[in-house]
Amino acid sequence: MSEGNVGLTGTKEFTFGEPPDVVTLESGRKIGPVTVAYETYGRLNEDRSNAILICHALSGDAHAAGYHEGETAPGWWDAMIGPGKAFDTDRYFVICSNVIGGCKGSTGPSSPNPQTGKPYALDFPVITVSDMVNVQRYLIDHLGIDRLFCVAGGSMGGMQALQWVSSYPERVMSAIPVATTLKHSPQQIAFDEVIRQSIMGDPAWRKGNYYDHGQPQNGLSVARMIGHITFMSDTSMEAKFSRKLKNGGYGFSLEDDFEVEGYLRYRGDSFVKRFDANSYLYITKAMDYFDLSGDLFLPGKQRVDSRFLVISFTSDWLYPSSQSLDIVRALKRRRIAATYCELKSTWGHDAFLVEVAEETRLITNFLRGITATLSPLHHDFPGSRNHETAASPAENRRVS
Amino acid sequence: MSEGNVGLTGTKEFTFGEPPDVVTLESGRKIGPVTVAYETYGRLNEDRSNAILICHALSGDAHAAGYHEGETAPGWWDAMIGPGKAFDTDRYFVICSNVIGGCKGSTGPSSPNPQTGKPYALDFPVITVSDMVNVQRYLIDHLGIDRLFCVAGGSMGGMQALQWVSSYPERVMSAIPVATTLKHSPQQIAFDEVIRQSIMGDPAWRKGNYYDHGQPQNGLSVARMIGHITFMSDTSMEAKFSRKLKNGGYGFSLEDDFEVEGYLRYRGDSFVKRFDANSYLYITKAMDYFDLSGDLFLPGKQRVDSRFLVISFTSDWLYPSSQSLDIVRALKRRRIAATYCELKSTWGHDAFLVEVAEETRLITNFLRGITATLSPLHHDFPGSRNHETAASPAENRRVS
Repeated sequence: MSEGNVGLTGTKEFTFGEPPDVVTLESGRKIGPVTVAYETYGRLNEDRSNAILICHALSGDAHAAGYHEGETAPGWWDAMIGPGKAFDTDRYFVICSNVIGGCKGSTGPSSPNPQTGKPYALDFPVITVSDMVNVQRYLIDHLGIDRLFCVAGGSMGGMQALQWVSSYPERVMSAIPVATTLKHSPQQIAFDEVIRQSIMGDPAWRKGNYYDHGQPQNGLSVARMIGHITFMSDTSMEAKFSRKLKNGGYGFSLEDDFEVEGYLRYRGDSFVKRFDANSYLYITKAMDYFDLSGDLFLPGKQRVDSRFLVISFTSDWLYPSSQSLDIVRALKRRRIAATYCELKSTWGHDAFLVEVAEETRLITNFLRGITATLSPLHHDFPGSRNHETAASPAENRRVS
Repeated sequence: MSEGNVGLTGTKEFTFGEPPDVVTLESGRKIGPVTVAYETYGRLNEDRSNAILICHALSGDAHAAGYHEGETAPGWWDAMIGPGKAFDTDRYFVICSNVIGGCKGSTGPSSPNPQTGKPYALDFPVITVSDMVNVQRYLIDHLGIDRLFCVAGGSMGGMQALQWVSSYPERVMSAIPVATTLKHSPQQIAFDEVIRQSIMGDPAWRKGNYYDHGQPQNGLSVARMIGHITFMSDTSMEAKFSRKLKNGGYGFSLEDDFEVEGYLRYRGDSFVKRFDANSYLYITKAMDYFDLSGDLFLPGKQRVDSRFLVISFTSDWLYPSSQSLDIVRALKRRRIAATYCELKSTWGHDAFLVEVAEETRLITNFLRGITATLSPLHHDFPGSRNHETAASPAENRRVS
């Protein structure tokens, strides 16, 4: 298996919903025009049947793979997307777009409000995961794709994968929700609420109108620090930091003594430079509203053919395995094909970005299994050169 | 068994360390005079052998039991202290004092600095758990108590119980550390650091000099909200809040929608009214510095006769059972008698305040067991009327 990199990539834009054809959101509010920033890797095949949509997590963006001109760090899931990788760009046409509400090229609270020419700030409507998916559907329509071969993502990306099947089951051949949930639990809502209060409690937030003054950096930095604790595990923090001191001994002041403190401060400060505070508010709210539990998942829908690979990680306490099992149970109740794998990892929630080898094995086999079930009509499908069936790795804990 | 209340109680003060006899802290800095606020319940027996010191957690105080004049809420561990209760005031003389660095009557950053007449603020020296214990020792000396029958406490109170045995093994007959640890882990330090950054990042904190202007309420409120999430468990939050909405539906604004959000905001706001922000900084720092792991616990000490009852709770993820097991292992390595009990509870870290029935059974039996081993010389010891041996309840998981 040759593993390569998709090379130089760039973010494109697609704008739609020009008035009067504005977009109606789940809240009932209307917005338009809407720009969606996206990247694509690999080639769309002739019958447009090899498209995979990758959905990003809370602070992600459209730049999932390859390198931007002049930058040394690759896209956020570069280890998983490229020639010979899990999302093999020799076989699949991979799409990743920035969510609505974000700050990385798609329309969000920091975008100019067409009615004022100034940033929307809090005039931006509250969005939901369903709205994120609807915006992606506009993009998929624009790219001429009728049915996605797969929708995949971790964390909030996994919520979008679930929402895709709930909103448009006929347009999704398979879905891979990773380290995610059918609904935010009260503990998850609680962490998000503290994050929002940290930002909104900072006087520099100015009720969202800080764009002429700079970010509410204290509040946003603390918000991100809270997030980082929940992304790691007790074990990974012990391995990385233990009680190591920055200067060899206690300083007996209120300054930071421990390496873990310095690390968190650094992560908080860097986040302020790269992410809009209002986007953080809107996107966490969208996650808290997310609820596909009970009858909310596929209400009254016909038989669903989408096939699922559900992945969770043992040390992820933010989106614990019990929540992935809830997803699998909901799928099984609807008689939807689902394979569940709980991977051993000490990396906490970050595992979905780190445990590349195991994820690659699972996802490669799962996608080839989907390919194998396609009708002979799909003879031009790149994946058809390899008719493996989905193997069940050792870690694969099937729930039937 | 009659269970009563200790009735009307009041906080007393003891001041010591008047210059030039100032107190030297672990940091090497000196402070004096030092006032310690304390309460006592029950009667000290003739040979002063029935004294139990109760140590409070992060935001606790000396008011552990009974009622203060005009107040309707009892002390913070009233369910455990009183006639016929776990810490039976018919048998024991119970003492509880506010820690140094606190804001409930003992000398702390909000106390007047004798050199300026204004609050110490950040001129207050950084204190450690060892300093807290040394201050308690001054109080115990003042009360004429040579050896404590028991030192007990949960969370930071448990750290003090451990520190007592480490600092003064000959003065502690038994110790009950509950839901605590031998050392703060990087995750615990991380949460405390975010709490401190939340306070110190609030401009209203004014580098600690806010006493003429009011508390840094945004930062302190968010800090306490973070704390509250760590005190609860996913299960207890699900039981109490689930995804219940305040107004029946999504508000599609950035305001709070969920009951759990309202609860956290309420807890944050009430904390601002009752606890000094600088004390929160100093006390969390003391906890982060706490480390009795490895050779730090009883270094080079002689045989230790203190007997231990170590208690943890299954759903406590802030001070998980693995940390209590580390305590037990350290004790066993030193051949110190220790019984370990992991109690089933869904209440998270709050369990040590809530699981009264189970704790009462364990502690009552443990203390009576200690009484039973006392020499006949202690004939006037109140507990001597009942010579039960320490029973092993069903939940009692002995580690030997």
